[in-house]
This record gives sequence, C-alpha cells and structure tokens, in this order.
Amino acid sequence: MDNVNNIRTLCADMVQRANSGHPGAPLGLAPFVYILYTEFINFDPDDEKWIGRDIFLLSNGHACALQYVVSYLIGHLNMEDLMNFRQIGGRTPGHPERKYPGVESSTGPLGQGLANAVGFAISLKKLGDLGLFNRVYCVFGDGCYQEGMGQESFSLAANLKLDNIVFIYDFNKTTIDGPTSLSMNEDVAQRFLSLGFEVDIVDGDDLDGIRKALSKKVSKPMVIILETIIGRGSTVEGSCKAHGAPLGEDGVRRLKEKFGIPAVDFYVSPSLMEKFKILNEKKRRIRTEWDVKGIKAITVREWTDIQRKMDSIYKSTYKAQDAPKATRKHFSEALKDLKEVSYLIGGAADLQSSVLTKIGGDDFNAENHNGGYINFGIREHCMCGVMNGIASHGYFLPYSGTFLNFISYGFPSVRLGCMDNLNLFYVLTHDSIGLGEDGPTHQPIEVLSTLRATPNLITMRPCDGTEVRTSLYTALTREGPKAVILSRQSVPEIPHTDMEKARRGAYYLVEVENPDLILLSTGSEVQICYEVAEALSDLKISIVSFFSWELFEEQGEEYKKHILKDVPKVSIEALSTFGWTKYSDMQIGMTTFGASGACKDVYNHFGLNCKEISKKIVSFLNKLSKCL
Amino acid sequence: MDNVNNIRTLCADMVQRANSGHPGAPLGLAPFVYILYTEFINFDPDDEKWIGRDIFLLSNGHACALQYVVSYLIGHLNMEDLMNFRQIGGRTPGHPERKYPGVESSTGPLGQGLANAVGFAISLKKLGDLGLFNRVYCVFGDGCYQEGMGQESFSLAANLKLDNIVFIYDFNKTTIDGPTSLSMNEDVAQRFLSLGFEVDIVDGDDLDGIRKALSKKVSKPMVIILETIIGRGSTVEGSCKAHGAPLGEDGVRRLKEKFGIPAVDFYVSPSLMEKFKILNEKKRRIRTEWDVKGIKAITVREWTDIQRKMDSIYKSTYKAQDAPKATRKHFSEALKDLKEVSYLIGGAADLQSSVLTKIGGDDFNAENHNGGYINFGIREHCMCGVMNGIASHGYFLPYSGTFLNFISYGFPSVRLGCMDNLNLFYVLTHDSIGLGEDGPTHQPIEVLSTLRATPNLITMRPCDGTEVRTSLYTALTREGPKAVILSRQSVPEIPHTDMEKARRGAYYLVEVENPDLILLSTGSEVQICYEVAEALSDLKISIVSFFSWELFEEQGEEYKKHILKDVPKVSIEALSTFGWTKYSDMQIGMTTFGASGACKDVYNHFGLNCKEISKKIVSFLNKLSKCL
Repeated sequence: MDNVNNIRTLCADMVQRANSGHPGAPLGLAPFVYILYTEFINFDPDDEKWIGRDIFLLSNGHACALQYVVSYLIGHLNMEDLMNFRQIGGRTPGHPERKYPGVESSTGPLGQGLANAVGFAISLKKLGDLGLFNRVYCVFGDGCYQEGMGQESFSLAANLKLDNIVFIYDFNKTTIDGPTSLSMNEDVAQRFLSLGFEVDIVDGDDLDGIRKALSKKVSKPMVIILETIIGRGSTVEGSCKAHGAPLGEDGVRRLKEKFGIPAVDFYVSPSLMEKFKILNEKKRRIRTEWDVKGIKAITVREWTDIQRKMDSIYKSTYKAQDAPKATRKHFSEALKDLKEVSYLIGGAADLQSSVLTKIGGDDFNAENHNGGYINFGIREHCMCGVMNGIASHGYFLPYSGTFLNFISYGFPSVRLGCMDNLNLFYVLTHDSIGLGEDGPTHQPIEVLSTLRATPNLITMRPCDGTEVRTSLYTALTREGPKAVILSRQSVPEIPHTDMEKARRGAYYLVEVENPDLILLSTGSEVQICYEVAEALSDLKISIVSFFSWELFEEQGEEYKKHILKDVPKVSIEALSTFGWTKYSDMQIGMTTFGASGACKDVYNHFGLNCKEISKKIVSFLNKLSKCL
Repeated sequence: MDNVNNIRTLCADMVQRANSGHPGAPLGLAPFVYILYTEFINFDPDDEKWIGRDIFLLSNGHACALQYVVSYLIGHLNMEDLMNFRQIGGRTPGHPERKYPGVESSTGPLGQGLANAVGFAISLKKLGDLGLFNRVYCVFGDGCYQEGMGQESFSLAANLKLDNIVFIYDFNKTTIDGPTSLSMNEDVAQRFLSLGFEVDIVDGDDLDGIRKALSKKVSKPMVIILETIIGRGSTVEGSCKAHGAPLGEDGVRRLKEKFGIPAVDFYVSPSLMEKFKILNEKKRRIRTEWDVKGIKAITVREWTDIQRKMDSIYKSTYKAQDAPKATRKHFSEALKDLKEVSYLIGGAADLQSSVLTKIGGDDFNAENHNGGYINFGIREHCMCGVMNGIASHGYFLPYSGTFLNFISYGFPSVRLGCMDNLNLFYVLTHDSIGLGEDGPTHQPIEVLSTLRATPNLITMRPCDGTEVRTSLYTALTREGPKAVILSRQSVPEIPHTDMEKARRGAYYLVEVENPDLILLSTGSEVQICYEVAEALSDLKISIVSFFSWELFEEQGEEYKKHILKDVPKVSIEALSTFGWTKYSDMQIGMTTFGASGACKDVYNHFGLNCKEISKKIVSFLNKLSKCL
C-alpha cells in the first residue's frame, strides 16, 4: 500500500502547487488505478498511441491529477508536467484534453467519458478480426452516473453486449453539494443488473478484491462498483470539502504524515520508481513481441478505397430539369456509393427512415461486432459521445444522423468533438421550418447559428444534388468535424450550382455586372432567390450560394471581397437570422419560433416567399437611397 | 370498448385528413386514456386552467391526435379543431403546444414531458397545504424512456418521493426504426424498481386492469407499464409502419369496419357523445362544490411580497471604491433579500457552492414537500425541464443554476421554455474563459450566442454589483424566460453603472462628444474598456455597457442610433464574437476554444488585455482611415 499512498501524496502535491483542483477523487481511486496499471493494462511506455494498448478513460475528468501521476510513472509525462498542473502553456490542464500525452479523449463535462468508452469499445471490436482483443477501462463518478447521457451509454453498451468494457464506478457517495442522498437513493447495483451488466461490488482499498474483479471473464459489459472514500487519508476524508479545493499546506503535511511519506514536495519513493521501472521494461518487451503488422496498412488501404470511390461521389450528373428531390435523399444516394467502405461507421438515433443514413450492409449489434451501422436508439447525446470515442481511436470515420433540431440533445458531445477536432460528420436533416407539420417543437431556429458559432466545425447547407456531392466529398476528405444540413422537403436542381466552386464556401450562381443588390442564401431558400430576381427584374441582382460560412472564411481577402461586393446585400435563410449581419445588410429569416402546417403554408405564414421578400427588399432599398 | 374504438377511429380520421401525423400510439393508448378521463381525472369542461384539475401530460407528444380527441369530448376543443389537425392557423398542431387549449406543456422532443411532470408534481405538492391533492398523469413512450433526460427525471421523482405522479409507459416495443430490440433489451420493470418506483404491468386493452392500477394507493411515484400494440386494430398493427404515417383511406376504412364504426369521416357515436355529456355535467357539479377560495388570493399576496422586497433589491448602494467581487456573489447576496418569498423555487445541478442559488430556507425533498430549494443532482437537462413544469403550472417562479457552459446539457428544455415564454430564470455562472483553471472543457465560447439567438429569451450579463441588481429586478418582474450570466472571478465596481439606465439594455458609461471610437462590452470585460480608453488617451472614446441585447432591441430607433453612433465601434467580450457584427465594426473576443490556467494568464494568452486590444484597435483604425 506504500506505493499507492505515495501516488496519493503526489496527487495532493499537484493540487496544492496549483492551488486549484480536485484532490478528493484521486485519493479514493489510487488503489484501483495502481492495480489496474501495474497488473492489467496494456501500454507502451514509448508509444502512447500504440494500437495494441488498452484504453483508459477518466469520465470524472476532474480526477485527472491521478491520471497525470500515472502517466508520469509510465513515462508519458515528466515531473515538470506534474508541477505545472493547471498552468497556461502546460500539458496537464485542469481536465484531461486529448491533445496532451496519455489522454484518449477530453473529459470533464460529466458523462462524456462513458459514451466515449462505448465508442472505443466498438472500434476495438471492429478491429478484433485483426487480432486485437483490448479492453476499455472507464472510471466514472456519481455525476457521470446521474447524467442522462451516462444512463444512455450504459443501456447501449448492454444492448450491444460490449464485453470489452469495464466501467469502474467511483462510488464515494459524495457530490459537490454533499452526500449523494441529497439527489439519489436508488439501488445502483440493481439498476445495472436490470440493463444486463455483470456487476461486482468491491471495497476501494481492497487490492485483492480489485485484482479479482479485474480478472473476471465476462460475456457482457461489466461494472465494478468501487466503494471508495472521497479524500481518503486526508483530514476532510468522506466530506464534500475534499472534492474541489486543495487540502492546504497543513492538510498535505498531515496526509504525508499519516501515510509515512517524507514531508518533501513531489516526493517519489525509490520503491515506486523501481516498481514502474520494472513494469515499463516488461511492457517494452511485450510490445517488441507483439506482431501487429498489417493493421496500419489495412487502414490505409481503406482510405485508398474511399479515394477511389471519390470519382463517383465527386461527379455531378444533376441537371436543372431533374425532378425536385429533398437534399437528404440526394445525400443518402451519394452515400450509398460508399457502402462497401468498411472504414465508415454509420448510425442514427432512431430516425433512419427520415435521415437515411443506413446505406446497406450489416448492423453492428450484440450478435455481430463487425457491422457498420449502429442503432443508437433515441439517445442523441450518447450517439454524439460514441462518435467522439470512435473518432478518437482513429481507425474509423463515424457519421450519424438526427433532425437538425435534435442535435441540441447531443450538443455537449458535439462541442467536445469540435474541441478535439475529431474526424467525423453529422447528417442533420429536417433543417428548417420547411419540415412543416411537426411544428415548432421540431423546427430548428437557433441551432444552425449555434453550430456556426462553434470553433472548428465545418457546417454545409447544400441547396441541391450538386452541392450535396460537395458536402459529402468535404465530409469525407476534410480533417475535423463536419455537419451537413439537409432539407426534408424537395428542392429543384438549381441552375449553375457547381461542385468545385461550392468548395470555396460561397460563390456566384448568378453574377451580373454592377449589381444593385446581391442575394445571399443557402439550402432550400436558394430557389427563392431566383424567383425574387425575376420578380424584381428592373434591378440588377446577383445571387450567391452561401453553402458554408467556414469554408468561405478560409478564402483569401480578394475572393471574399469579390463575393461581398460593396453593394446592398440581403441574406435569406429560413432559420434564425442571428449572425448574418456579418455578411448581409438586411437579414430575411426567422426571429420567432415556427408553426405547424404544410411546408408551403408555413413559409407563407412567415413571409418567406417571393412576394413578401420582394416587398421587404424594395422597402429596404428605398430606405437606403433616402439615407444617401 | 365501442367508445374506445370510436376514439380510435377519430384519431385515424384526423391523421388521414391531415395526410400527416402519427396514428400508431393513439390506437394503442385509447383504452387507457378513455378510462383515465371517464373515471379518474379531475377537470372542468368550462375552465381548462382550473387550479383543482389533475395534470395530463403526453410526453410522447406525437400521439397528440388522441389528446385532441379527448379535449374535444370534454369541451376544450371543437370538431373544427380536429378537422384542422396540423394546419397553419389551427389550434391542433403536430405536437402539443401550450398556447392551445387543453395542453399543459409543449411536448414532442422526447423525454421533455417526463421532466415537466416532475415540475408539476412539485408545484402541486407545494400547493398541498391549500387543500390541493391533485395528481399528475404522464404518458410516455420508448423514446422518452431511452432519452437520458427521462432517466434523470425518473431518478429525481423517486428521490423526491413524488407520490402524486403516475407515469404511464406506452410499452409497445416499437420505435420508428423497428422493434425496440434494435436498441434495448433491458428489464424495464426492474430498472424502475431499482429507483424505488411502484411498478404495475397492465395489458393495454384490459380496461379493468387499467382501472385497478389507477386506483392503487401509493406512497411513491408509480409507473404503469402498459403493454400496448402500436397501430392497434389497423392493418399495420404491431409494426413501425404504424408510427408516423397515415393509414391511408383504405386503412381507415378497414379500421372502422373492424371496429363496427360507420364509414363516415369523423363519425362520433351517440353513445360516446352521451358518455361525455354526462361526464362533463358531473364534472361541472364537482367544480361548483369545490371550494378553492383563497388560493388565487394567496398567489397575489406573494407577488405583493416580492414587489415590496423590490425596494431593497432595486437599490444600488455600490460604490466604485468597493472591493472587487464576483458578479455571482453579488447576485446571490441580492437574491438573499428574497429568502422569505415562498413564491420562488430555487435549485442547482449540484453546484450550489459555485452558483450560490441557495438563499436559506428548507430543501424540497422526500421528507419535506414544502421546501423552496431543489437539489437536482447532476441532471441539468431534467432541471430545466422541471423548471418548465413548475412555470407552466403558473403558481411559482422557478430559478436554478449551473455553469454557463453546462446549460448546453439542458438546452432542449431551455428552448421549449422559451417557445412557451415561461416565467423562470437561469443563473449561469463561470461565464467565460475567466473561470480559469478548469480549462476549455468548462469554458463557454459559443453558448452565449446560442442563448442570444433563441427567441423570447432575455439574456443579461451584468458588469458589477449595480447591474446585478438590475438583472435580478428584471428576472423577477419581467414576463418570460431570462438568463443571468455571471462571472466566477472578481470584478471591480464600475464607475457610472446605473440601475435605471441598464434597463435599456445598452447605455453609455462614458460618453464623449464627437467620439473617435465607441467600445461596446459586457460583464467582466467592461473594466478592460476603461483601461483601453486610458491607454489610447489621444483618442476620444465612449464606453457602452451592452448589458442585454434583447432589452436594447426593444428601445426606439432614436435611442438605438444614439448608442450605435456612426463612428467606429469595437466590441469586447471574452466569449465567441459570433453575432457581434450586428453592433460593432470590429469584434474582439474568442474564435477558438479556451485554455487551462489562472484567469489572468488565460486572458493574456488570448490577447484579451489592455495592451493587445489597444494594439488591435489602433491597427483597425489605421486600416479604416486608409480606406477612406
């Protein structure tokens, strides 16, 4: 136990030095993590991204001091990192961030790691036929357990029979505000049993019990309910005071005294050093023995596969005379060209018949851990978190669909995927009031501006079949997170849309000399611009398809000026006008919630038709000319 | 069963006439709803908002055809409403909306009704000492059950021992994409039992079984697992095809044939009419007998109480010489003046020690259904949904707190609260990168612009103690949803802040004649504007506190022009710059995610300090003058 206690004091030292952080959970969890790392987990001290590694996730990310100490002991971090805990420019931030060593995915917002774990487990299962049989170990706390997305993730893990996940519940019965009894009094073990989990209850200080639980062979996901004590060994042991504040100098001194650790800052005992030196050497030998030839090659082959398929994706055969079609249908058809690319993992949150993300092939389910399509159930948040896990592992490209409005349910995960700049894409259909009868509860208003305001995310709202091809091409080839925004209703094929030009984010569909006015629009509203230009035929009007704000922002100044000429610009989009002031002088769109009715009636109701828009534009131009 | 079957055919008629909608769930649920309404539920046919009514919620809002048929039979809707299902301008939208008769809260986005139910139950419990002992009946489907917020709500309901809720699970084992086995294979009853629910399993067609279950006396929340068949009686019975598409003219004909109902559109049998005529008369008699004197008077008294307290809230005693203090602390102190106002119900998602929303008084918990503070646990989504329920009932003013960044977890409920324009307010602290060490996982970037883009929501970001008073005053007195955005870190008291002026949303803190530049800012960044003005002392600089965009937008054109003078304007806010182009010519703020470190270090890291901002402004002005 001396080694464990030394890990504990190192954690306390880190929080104390930073004068900020969370000592409570690390003190309680140290015994478990010690046994896990010294006896079970596969890792390579010299290659933290080794494909043969097991996955360790800390869903209660605030406990990261413990993770950093272990990363130091196994050689992924150094002592300076520990001393720079929570400092700007350091590699040991206040919550784990994927861009720093030893961190598989960014956690901290509670519940996220649980969904990530499911994603990693799916990815590992799909690599299983390559001889990989690794496990995912995911530690979580009461917060993760209470969060809805946590319950979604447990339920999905059970349904998929992911026997390669071990969840470890840091069951210290203490949250920030006090004992968990303030907010829950339920039978935690029974709740896991009801889902079909293997459940073990172990004392958090019982090294042998931990060892036994981790040795168990299981055929379903497992949870170890670890009865820990928050702040174990400190003077605030068992109290919520141990959660989120340093122990104080005196507190750290007394902790060391209690554990018989010398009163030296960041003291590491020779025994602890030796233990991990031997362990790391052993792990190096195992790595050398491992034969993982071929795995990377296979991933590359897959990618070449996609590149070859690009020919068919990135080719527009659409014509303005084509029958109108919903862009969600265009997207699904384009996606189908990729149905044999096993690099892709698709899914939907029980809206397959609407979002059309299933392109053939088998489901990934309890009976088949090799399929390419996941039925997430009505669990959008978990879905987005699982995608983050799959993408973080890095061997598959996840995509998944729901209604645009319901990406809000999963947004906290979307945000983290963007923070980590993960390779994935969302298929978001029913993208405006144009979804019609389902009404304002389902009609997105503010959500597209939310996505546009989120750093790193590329949003694309194609207006027809041609632009849909560009959106899929970009979704597949461009690094980072992407969102494709698609219509429920049919739209005509627009004259002059262009796959190449669309890649610049915004481009002229109609470009007149010395225009009086430029109309900027996206998606299903582009067609209205043509009607307006015809109705206002005494004006010289250019039309811009503003396919993707983010792609446009990447263009040079000259191109931007060419599109945003110094003439009156009017934007038209059947969603919130919020943010459009960046590009347009007048904004036509939604400033209220929507209404239930047939698509066309709803557009008319909100004045989003040629007649009303033309009127508004004329009055706007009149007002402008008076000002001059 | 004839009456039940007639209700079924009316639902099928509605969906058929609309040629859009969801017949499956109504056909399965009709027997239950028939027994509930004819034998159990309290209502007044002439006063749908009667305080003595029981609450009926349809969390699976897509089943609303059934609810509308019942509302027609009990007199809250008419036949024309049924025929106008899902039409623009009608009162029977595709999902229930609170603004129309007989709808307690807007549902459809799955899981929301479950949290609303908890809110109504809390509100009813608190009215219990006035002699009200009503129940909440909440019907939900597999989607609501799978959604994380559903599980959060069940867990909270159990923890609060809300024995006045009956949840009814429309357990038809079918979701949009097929059988529920695609996404879950768990022991549903056991999961409820683990939470501490009273659980009953009843055949959906067994009228007597339904009756018995509803008659049960319980001392904890109850769930009736109703084994229904989707599309019952139709040719697509038991199939996901019954979920979201009309049965077709032939399908409706065959349904009527099967049930022996005449093949007449919207046929209502004399038996069904008579049944409800007698029922409604009985309900009218009960209403007459009811003595609810005093209840409304008490609510009004409470309100007067608040008005009196306003004197102390709406009085600024802050001085620029005061010691710096976090605006979250200012807010909490101001709130404490209201601790005896029982009209308020407060809460937090396990961040009480940070968001400081607890102002004294008792907790509302299993032992005390009269307290004024709810420990929501780490369940932000449920929290926001519960607030919607409380506010929808209309007798209490709910407010609750979390970190600004984590309102994303509850945003789908926030959105519905805004759609229904409910009276409530959010206390959102740790409002920028200024929260420091917790890092980018916790630092809000895009979330404030999301809130600003959401219709009906008033957001306020006060810069000091004085403006905090205005934010609380507005939160208490203004109708509709409000969000108060507060700093973790201390801020100085700003010279010239003004409680009255702040009510206009934006106002001059410093107003110079013929300014070269106007700085627009909010919250903790206002202080930087003073530093910048001093650093650039050769320029004439005015400073505007842009306390609330929405309040500003309500001002007259003249006032707006006075604030947004035609000189260069620069906005400064340590969050996403998204949307600021509406008011400013240059935007200073965040365009990436944040970083972990001490507050000041993080500001410096992102160039959000006097020196870097001054440089940017000078270069911006130089560029401008070159263009002229």
